[in-house]
Amino acid sequence: MPSNPEWVKALEPSGPQGSELLAQERAKSDLNVDQLAEFMFTKEILQRNERILNILLAEPVFDKSQNYFRGRNARIEAALARGKRLQQLQVQHKWSKDEFETANSLISEPTPYGLHASMFLVTLREQGTPEQHKLFLEKAEKYQIIGCYAQTELGHGSNVRGLETTATWNADDKTFTIHSPTLTASKWWIGSLGKTANYAVVMAQLYIGNKNYGPHPFVVPIRDMKTHEPLPNVHVGDIGPKFGYNTMDNGFLLFKNVKIPHQNMLARFSSIDPTTNKYVRPSNPSLIYGTLTYIRSHIVLQSGSVLARGVTIATRYCAVRRQFQDRDAPASEPGENQVLNYTMVQIRLLPLLAATYALHFTGRGMINLYQENQKRMNSTAAPESERAPGPEELNPGTDLLADLHATSCALKALASTTAAEGLEVCRRACGGHGYSSFSGIGSWYADYLPTVTWEGDNYMLTQQVSRYLLKSARAVLKGNAGDNDTTRILSEFVRRRDIGAAFDVIGSDDDLVAAFAWRVSFLTFEALRHRDEDKQSWNSLLVDFWRLSTAHAQYMVVKNFHEALNDPNTTKSIDKGTVALLHKLFRLYALHTLEKEASEFYSSAAVTVRQITLARTKAVMTLLEEIRPHAVRLVDAWKFPDWQLDSSLGRYDGKVYEDMFYRASELNPLNSVVFDPYPDSKVLFKKDERQNLRSKL
Amino acid sequence: MPSNPEWVKALEPSGPQGSELLAQERAKSDLNVDQLAEFMFTKEILQRNERILNILLAEPVFDKSQNYFRGRNARIEAALARGKRLQQLQVQHKWSKDEFETANSLISEPTPYGLHASMFLVTLREQGTPEQHKLFLEKAEKYQIIGCYAQTELGHGSNVRGLETTATWNADDKTFTIHSPTLTASKWWIGSLGKTANYAVVMAQLYIGNKNYGPHPFVVPIRDMKTHEPLPNVHVGDIGPKFGYNTMDNGFLLFKNVKIPHQNMLARFSSIDPTTNKYVRPSNPSLIYGTLTYIRSHIVLQSGSVLARGVTIATRYCAVRRQFQDRDAPASEPGENQVLNYTMVQIRLLPLLAATYALHFTGRGMINLYQENQKRMNSTAAPESERAPGPEELNPGTDLLADLHATSCALKALASTTAAEGLEVCRRACGGHGYSSFSGIGSWYADYLPTVTWEGDNYMLTQQVSRYLLKSARAVLKGNAGDNDTTRILSEFVRRRDIGAAFDVIGSDDDLVAAFAWRVSFLTFEALRHRDEDKQSWNSLLVDFWRLSTAHAQYMVVKNFHEALNDPNTTKSIDKGTVALLHKLFRLYALHTLEKEASEFYSSAAVTVRQITLARTKAVMTLLEEIRPHAVRLVDAWKFPDWQLDSSLGRYDGKVYEDMFYRASELNPLNSVVFDPYPDSKVLFKKDERQNLRSKL
Repeated sequence: MPSNPEWVKALEPSGPQGSELLAQERAKSDLNVDQLAEFMFTKEILQRNERILNILLAEPVFDKSQNYFRGRNARIEAALARGKRLQQLQVQHKWSKDEFETANSLISEPTPYGLHASMFLVTLREQGTPEQHKLFLEKAEKYQIIGCYAQTELGHGSNVRGLETTATWNADDKTFTIHSPTLTASKWWIGSLGKTANYAVVMAQLYIGNKNYGPHPFVVPIRDMKTHEPLPNVHVGDIGPKFGYNTMDNGFLLFKNVKIPHQNMLARFSSIDPTTNKYVRPSNPSLIYGTLTYIRSHIVLQSGSVLARGVTIATRYCAVRRQFQDRDAPASEPGENQVLNYTMVQIRLLPLLAATYALHFTGRGMINLYQENQKRMNSTAAPESERAPGPEELNPGTDLLADLHATSCALKALASTTAAEGLEVCRRACGGHGYSSFSGIGSWYADYLPTVTWEGDNYMLTQQVSRYLLKSARAVLKGNAGDNDTTRILSEFVRRRDIGAAFDVIGSDDDLVAAFAWRVSFLTFEALRHRDEDKQSWNSLLVDFWRLSTAHAQYMVVKNFHEALNDPNTTKSIDKGTVALLHKLFRLYALHTLEKEASEFYSSAAVTVRQITLARTKAVMTLLEEIRPHAVRLVDAWKFPDWQLDSSLGRYDGKVYEDMFYRASELNPLNSVVFDPYPDSKVLFKKDERQNLRSKL
Repeated sequence: MPSNPEWVKALEPSGPQGSELLAQERAKSDLNVDQLAEFMFTKEILQRNERILNILLAEPVFDKSQNYFRGRNARIEAALARGKRLQQLQVQHKWSKDEFETANSLISEPTPYGLHASMFLVTLREQGTPEQHKLFLEKAEKYQIIGCYAQTELGHGSNVRGLETTATWNADDKTFTIHSPTLTASKWWIGSLGKTANYAVVMAQLYIGNKNYGPHPFVVPIRDMKTHEPLPNVHVGDIGPKFGYNTMDNGFLLFKNVKIPHQNMLARFSSIDPTTNKYVRPSNPSLIYGTLTYIRSHIVLQSGSVLARGVTIATRYCAVRRQFQDRDAPASEPGENQVLNYTMVQIRLLPLLAATYALHFTGRGMINLYQENQKRMNSTAAPESERAPGPEELNPGTDLLADLHATSCALKALASTTAAEGLEVCRRACGGHGYSSFSGIGSWYADYLPTVTWEGDNYMLTQQVSRYLLKSARAVLKGNAGDNDTTRILSEFVRRRDIGAAFDVIGSDDDLVAAFAWRVSFLTFEALRHRDEDKQSWNSLLVDFWRLSTAHAQYMVVKNFHEALNDPNTTKSIDKGTVALLHKLFRLYALHTLEKEASEFYSSAAVTVRQITLARTKAVMTLLEEIRPHAVRLVDAWKFPDWQLDSSLGRYDGKVYEDMFYRASELNPLNSVVFDPYPDSKVLFKKDERQNLRSKL
């Protein structure tokens, strides 16, 4: 890489410097950043994060400086090397699961070990018998076998029942034949499969005789343990580049009548009796919803911090970037205005800042509720391995669990969509420089995008939510509903709908939350009428169901945020000023959402046109003004180390331009090559450097 | 690359085949695809496109099969090689500007020659004197010098007046000194500068003595014409990878007191008299708005086809992809349902399909209006080179031109945002496979994204639109307004606002258009009251201005689409059934927009809550059902060759899965490498193939 000449090294950005501007921002607000961070994450976890960060910083393999420049192959090789070292460190430091996840989150890229460490181990653990644990799990935990979880196929994603791969029981030699009858039966998108795994848990349609018993999990060896080449009659490889997630080797997998022994069918819940050749029914198939609820609740919690990375970067950068004078500024202030002072930037960023906190407290609330419920049910652990199960019927044991499950579906869809789309808003709020890889938002966004599809496609999930809400509404009308939050708000709506609602959404927080509840209830009974009275087809109602589910999720976020602020623990942990500021974020999130979805709030008669106009032109604009001075400290409280963000624009010290220039001019390997610009010449003028360049890329 | 074994080659997707499904789709509709395509593009242009496609297909350098696999350096090298060959072909075939653009559009990636061929040549041509044409333009046209247009700086984008690079007149030796006083003065984002250009038109603050005369264009040599190394005291290079546009060498550029002769200041409009050392004023600075209007109108027209690529891919794929059974389907139809049959997919795709046509006809309308106006003004050509000029004041000669300019700003913002965000909706509508690079949408979206920022940032532009609307409203109130569409709708609103409006948006097309006009007028007078009566600050109104501009643009799209359908030329060129189908697209676009923006339509009292509910639950849903059978033929009419789309999912023949599998298993270079999966081993098992792989990437 060429080094900058001395005269360039001597140049500074024109004043005021980014570091000065961020220092001013931090001086303007008295928010206690450490106190708020400890309240959100606990002191122990913040200290632990720092400890792990220091371990990673000391390892050359985790150096990020070439990440944005590398092509896919170099990136995935680096990622595998990192995954290996991470595994060694985990053993060396005896990291817990949480600590290991912290390290991964600081590195911030998927590694080819990703699905081994999660789905493969979990599935073996939860769906294997003690004998199978001995046979597979113990080796897998020691990374002597590396595996993946192969469910999705080229032709089938969400619809698990439509999978085409077959596992046929051979009564004669007590084996299964795993087979891919068609091209669309090829396993596809399977993480860690493309280049890394030598084993796979394969979901396949179990056949005994000619009878299909549905999809079941089978442990299948796929690569030679020494040469790492595919085994005979196995065709496996990487599915190619993607919009993001390119450090993962998502793979394809086809079988031509591959035989595996009886013991390779994971048999904790269902199995084949090899003596009678009879199928043994699953012991408790519905337990699964508990675990799915847990996974989705985690996606909700995580979505707050996913989005907060983008908001942190954009907020800091918009405080450093200055552009144009304020048209109404007095002549005594001739300098350019910080971009963050423009209301058009504030209206894009500050509601997202509010959303990061809203999602954090909602995710936390969901996980607490889940754990409470688990304790109460005192039930055994359930299998985690059914991913994206499609619109299954919800008939779990208790009303609370059913409510929790529906809420987790609705929230997963809303939260991951909010995070994904919010990140793109953050990137654009950074103007032209947001488009540079050095902004750190683009790649983060691209890597996060699959979350809107996996663990239940966000659109598919809304059907499950609506089915649950319709069922609850029917029960409320019949008078046989159980007691949970959903039935309470639906009953309240039924009681009051003839009287009408008059919510003081601007003056009262309780009324604001109640207006969200009213809208959900209104939409639920509307949808119920269309389905049960007008007999409209399910398909014709999908759009209404999606709106309904979104409304339900927004109500849950507003409610959870509100409850978190009124929790005695909150007022005990943080000072009054901070509570008041969080309260403004709550109101900004709620009123901005209300205004965005105004049409449904009108139709339900929860609010008047006058109220919406006031919310928009007065309440929201005032909140933006009040929150603005605290914006930088509010993102600081998320405590992302610069190394994690890997962003020129989002640096804690505000040295945006210096870092952009450094990365472009000193780290960029393209600047080692010389192009020949004339049409009738070859492309590269200096060919010798080309090789050099490629070995770096 | 490994070849698939025979047993894999023999596999087919499970039935029905994609090719059968698309054939069925095309059989279901009697839309005359060729007739519609000829109406939209003319027969001549369609034939021309085919002729140029065949020329490109015959050239190995344009082979696309490795595009998605290449890292940045390999991509940009290939792009430069393509740019070179394209230039040779242009000379050889004597291509016109339009033909050259067609070739570029078929190749569908920026080349490092991009800014030379556009902004550099245009600026020399329009801002240079005849002597300067001889000196620079003639060589540039022959590609003996390669240039770029260097305006944007690290610290300044939209605000041209804030540029920091200086050009100081030296009276003693009649030269200019070009200098970068700070790091933020570095030119940044300059296309074709990073590795290719040896000349730049540099926008710099002109200083004579200590007096600043504002930004002016200077022709500055930056690289040695033989060695291609930077000239002394010039620091230039590539700014690094971006979210997209990675086949372009966007560059940075710093000068340390570089001297250039007097003749290098482009002097057609303003200059320095070298004998008196006096500044000569620009002859006609306001002419520029005509050309900016033209450029923006082209972005509007282009946005329809940009979006149509994504809609074509997603619509075809959603007709091939089948998932789940319809819940209400009779038992006699047990197969899985085409994804395109789900209303939740239709509501995402079909309004975008409608938008492609709406934007096409609007862009065409704008360009016609512009040309008509140019004829009428009979004015001289204006310079094109001021890009993203910030919120300039609009005081051009006639009311029509001012109206056209404001409309082009509003439409540029709406159209490019619609296209960019619509492409992402299309990508997600393709489910999991939309995330694969082979979908062809992700890279296209990423490359298009800068359009929302350049030629006027979409948010900044809305201020210009609002300023114009406020000015028009003041004139209407004072009774001294000129006659154009804007003043007409504002006057009509003033006349009727006390009487009230009662638009039959569902029953009458004219009323539907009028409701959009009413909303714009309402928002204009609201904003005027806030600014002139309530004396609100400009900054506090930016959000309202953005809404206002969006409303204006939506009105213009609805109005233009409506007028295009009622044009006698339309009914002469296409049969009645096609007109009727386009009319449904018009209504879908208008009603779906009305429903999305319902809150503003209520507040303005243009419609009732009941009408919005009807629009949503009845009118829009019925239109989806009616348009659905024609969806595939409607995208076929855009006539994108498969080679241009480069998409497995969007293939004309529906062989989606075969193509996905072929690209992954046969073209993917990562499958030539073998990974060693164990933590305590090196990364690659087969190192020798690694070199091989890298030379391919």
